[in-house]
Amino acid sequence: MQVAMIGLGRMGMNMARRLLQGGHKVVVWNRSPDKVTAMVNEGAIGAESIKEAIQKLTCPRVVWCMLPAGNVTDMALKEILDTLVPDDMVIEGGNSYWKDDLEHAKAFYQKGCGYIDAGVSGGVWGLKVGYCTMVGGKDRHVRRAKPLFDTLAPPRGWKHVGPVGSGHFVKMVHNGIEYAMMEAIGEGFDLMHNGPFDKLDLGGIADLWGQGSVIRSWLLELLTTAYKRDPDLSSIKGYVDDSGEGRWTVLNSIEYGVSTPVLAQSLFKRFESRQGDVYSNKVLAALRKEFGGHPVKTK
Amino acid sequence: MQVAMIGLGRMGMNMARRLLQGGHKVVVWNRSPDKVTAMVNEGAIGAESIKEAIQKLTCPRVVWCMLPAGNVTDMALKEILDTLVPDDMVIEGGNSYWKDDLEHAKAFYQKGCGYIDAGVSGGVWGLKVGYCTMVGGKDRHVRRAKPLFDTLAPPRGWKHVGPVGSGHFVKMVHNGIEYAMMEAIGEGFDLMHNGPFDKLDLGGIADLWGQGSVIRSWLLELLTTAYKRDPDLSSIKGYVDDSGEGRWTVLNSIEYGVSTPVLAQSLFKRFESRQGDVYSNKVLAALRKEFGGHPVKTK
Amino acid sequence: MQVAMIGLGRMGMNMARRLLQGGHKVVVWNRSPDKVTAMVNEGAIGAESIKEAIQKLTCPRVVWCMLPAGNVTDMALKEILDTLVPDDMVIEGGNSYWKDDLEHAKAFYQKGCGYIDAGVSGGVWGLKVGYCTMVGGKDRHVRRAKPLFDTLAPPRGWKHVGPVGSGHFVKMVHNGIEYAMMEAIGEGFDLMHNGPFDKLDLGGIADLWGQGSVIRSWLLELLTTAYKRDPDLSSIKGYVDDSGEGRWTVLNSIEYGVSTPVLAQSLFKRFESRQGDVYSNKVLAALRKEFGGHPVKTK
Amino acid sequence: MQVAMIGLGRMGMNMARRLLQGGHKVVVWNRSPDKVTAMVNEGAIGAESIKEAIQKLTCPRVVWCMLPAGNVTDMALKEILDTLVPDDMVIEGGNSYWKDDLEHAKAFYQKGCGYIDAGVSGGVWGLKVGYCTMVGGKDRHVRRAKPLFDTLAPPRGWKHVGPVGSGHFVKMVHNGIEYAMMEAIGEGFDLMHNGPFDKLDLGGIADLWGQGSVIRSWLLELLTTAYKRDPDLSSIKGYVDDSGEGRWTVLNSIEYGVSTPVLAQSLFKRFESRQGDVYSNKVLAALRKEFGGHPVKTK
Repeated sequence: MQVAMIGLGRMGMNMARRLLQGGHKVVVWNRSPDKVTAMVNEGAIGAESIKEAIQKLTCPRVVWCMLPAGNVTDMALKEILDTLVPDDMVIEGGNSYWKDDLEHAKAFYQKGCGYIDAGVSGGVWGLKVGYCTMVGGKDRHVRRAKPLFDTLAPPRGWKHVGPVGSGHFVKMVHNGIEYAMMEAIGEGFDLMHNGPFDKLDLGGIADLWGQGSVIRSWLLELLTTAYKRDPDLSSIKGYVDDSGEGRWTVLNSIEYGVSTPVLAQSLFKRFESRQGDVYSNKVLAALRKEFGGHPVKTK
Repeated sequence: MQVAMIGLGRMGMNMARRLLQGGHKVVVWNRSPDKVTAMVNEGAIGAESIKEAIQKLTCPRVVWCMLPAGNVTDMALKEILDTLVPDDMVIEGGNSYWKDDLEHAKAFYQKGCGYIDAGVSGGVWGLKVGYCTMVGGKDRHVRRAKPLFDTLAPPRGWKHVGPVGSGHFVKMVHNGIEYAMMEAIGEGFDLMHNGPFDKLDLGGIADLWGQGSVIRSWLLELLTTAYKRDPDLSSIKGYVDDSGEGRWTVLNSIEYGVSTPVLAQSLFKRFESRQGDVYSNKVLAALRKEFGGHPVKTK
Repeated sequence: MQVAMIGLGRMGMNMARRLLQGGHKVVVWNRSPDKVTAMVNEGAIGAESIKEAIQKLTCPRVVWCMLPAGNVTDMALKEILDTLVPDDMVIEGGNSYWKDDLEHAKAFYQKGCGYIDAGVSGGVWGLKVGYCTMVGGKDRHVRRAKPLFDTLAPPRGWKHVGPVGSGHFVKMVHNGIEYAMMEAIGEGFDLMHNGPFDKLDLGGIADLWGQGSVIRSWLLELLTTAYKRDPDLSSIKGYVDDSGEGRWTVLNSIEYGVSTPVLAQSLFKRFESRQGDVYSNKVLAALRKEFGGHPVKTK
Repeated sequence: MQVAMIGLGRMGMNMARRLLQGGHKVVVWNRSPDKVTAMVNEGAIGAESIKEAIQKLTCPRVVWCMLPAGNVTDMALKEILDTLVPDDMVIEGGNSYWKDDLEHAKAFYQKGCGYIDAGVSGGVWGLKVGYCTMVGGKDRHVRRAKPLFDTLAPPRGWKHVGPVGSGHFVKMVHNGIEYAMMEAIGEGFDLMHNGPFDKLDLGGIADLWGQGSVIRSWLLELLTTAYKRDPDLSSIKGYVDDSGEGRWTVLNSIEYGVSTPVLAQSLFKRFESRQGDVYSNKVLAALRKEFGGHPVKTK
């Protein structure tokens, strides 16, 4: 079928490729035009604006929005909505907060347009193995976009999980779990690195655990690769970014009264990884000096 | 080759089977004799005592000890050691603490016998897919036992990770990670269960996440099966046992000064799951009453 | 000076008393009129509506709003604002979220009225020892209300901490710390209760720690009293409510990228204390059954 | 009464002073003799060896051992035991692990000597306000040492909490709570430092909270002093040591199956405060690069 892919970042670029490889007609737009040119060379139809991208489709049209969450997505959705006519639809596939989807969808519905939120997981490997896709929206809209999901996802790898917002909600929880799984692995390998046995082959152990152990997982496969690149991880700084989903997961767990200590701790540890000198620790050092005369390290 | 399997519990029984299927000659002993009979029917050679089991092998002999960690294993290893002669060896495959291996091995070495510690993961599925096996010990001992590991493990699924003790150490860390991965998944599904979207198909989502998502893992596959059995988990009480490895992992992380907040929290949550009324919470309720006049629930 | 106290709950009632004892003229209103009657008997002036309470003051008037946070406070503030005239002012002393203060203050400012947010700590003991009061607002408004704060607080016990909202923000953080201090004490006493020494006199230890130890604190004094009432806490269920401040503290820490693992964990533990069977634990029990054949407890 | 003080560190020195001020005859020994000289100038009797210190007392003798826990204390206790005769007694007042007390006491009992373990809190302020002292041992031994405890502690500030070992056990839990209370305060002040309101007077708020708030505590008083010294804590590095008690508390909580997430997390945060680049975070950064192509910071 036809689709416009708005945004050719790390995710959108490869998704456009996978759609092209699946035989779809893909119109692409990106803020920096060089990526558009690249995709045109691979068979896509280029556009110089969001409006033009949409206009190159025939009605009823499907637009896939794949931009950074927040203002960029808000503004793009506004422009898309202005261009669409009734029976057209948008698929918001970026990392939007599910509560924003509820607002966005309302505007599209009011104009008689469709709105789907699609949470997409798979990272840079999605092009090859397919993207796990969590879809929220109305039945008739999801039915219409089905050929796209069938192409993007691996077998059994996409699901209509519920009404609008639920796709991003489920993806958000996925990322919350991802943070904590990564932290679990990180802590375990830290203990092996600093524990009693010198010279454990950590990459080999990551690979080993991928074969028949209870914790076998894709993350361990990736870690095997990472250790192959750098057996000591000596070139890597322990600086870990976090995106919105990890935060939203914990915010939501508080809102709904769900205890998520491990998800929260995984988030906080990322915060600290980026702070040179954690202020709370300074307070502790100051206190220890006051009551115990313990020396403090000065800068 | 020949091996005596001492202990036919959930793990030992299936491991004996897999060894038999691999063409090895397996002598079996178990405290309750019915399991011995069952294995004899499947081709094993039965024995009525540990001593007899060993004596049915030809020298140099290999004895696999697969009993509950602690006293039971200690006593069995003592009996095995008494029966072995120089050049025989034991493989301690139970859930022993790696520090105990150091002691045990010393005694076997002194008599001229071999000692290997093997951490085995795979649960009830190991019979079918093979057991991920982490092996600690001396090169020449591991070389001798190689045919057993080759049979028990899936391809690339066993590894000589280091000196005596390191097999169980690595397996211990594996289980620490396992606890936290499970907790991560549990918390995420709790949020989906109690969050804003009713009637999410949690089993379907577990299955979906197995296909191309970043967190795809065997645990999610198992959870899919669990939800198929009981879509609401309504028949299951949130009572979660813990075995030694989870505790040892945290004890070791403290001993070696490694920060493992997520591993520790996963352990503590299991403690609480088994306590009707957590005492620390009673202290809090009592305090709230004192300073705020807040009502307390009485029993 | 004159003041209208709107709301005679656990906090408002005693604050009105302390103001009366300090020689102020206090007009009181409460939803249920019996408390108004009670305060009239103690020297207050009663009112049958918020409007009437305000009208019994002479301009420029000061109204202290001391109602449950959320809708009740929102509606009362609206009614107060409708009744006030320029140069009157309101002190919002309930447990409002500091972000709501920003909105509320804007409306009062627009009408030429003053707005102060006052975070008040002290619980049922405030009547006797005074209320620790954290004040946010404009200098000239705070100066006007000074006589009230001087009466309500113990010596050095109130402070103008910053602009509007900062009073409730600082009080919010106070409560976040309170949750974690309580949890710290609770966990320690749990370990003493379940540890190796039988029959430790926990109430006596709480009292002991109040005398010269590093952790001496009012909470330990309160715990001493609680143990005097019930040496085993056997009549108390470990069911712990939480109010908005504890949640907001963690929400804010995520918003501002501050790592607060201990504050968050204290909140989550309260969530769990109120849940019969924590769902995440059910997921774990289900998983353990699948991979290890471990028995689950059924309901 | 008479007592020998073995060890004149930060704690022992001031305790000797307080005992002298209380009218006791105090013989002192210290590894570096200058502190002995200093105390002799203040009225103590100096000794050049542990043996000599003990011999300068008249029987039955009481020796207070106040040395760093571990090997130093083990060796000193051995020397003390060799010198003592039946009916003499030792008070182990250092930071020994309570399980070590059980071993030590056995040796002293066998020789007919007394053994008391005394957990002492109070830091550098103990000289002035007295030391909160938790005492474990046999009734008759504690009775004999009572005059010392009466002098050292503030009113109601010492307690015979149980049999040998319980003094250090209770002190250990005290320190576990101390870690978490400090962490709670640290996190709260971090949020105020990094939150929405600039230029909050954090020292003033610490002082304010000491007046009538629910969290009033000595630690907040100390923090007030610390902020007076350095309003931004800018001269202090967030490097926080930990001593044995914090670790033992968590080890014991695991041994006895008590959930202490907040105590554990406070310990782990100290570990991380001392590590330049936390290894677990490097694992996470490496993983993020593998699955998402996220850039890593290199060293």
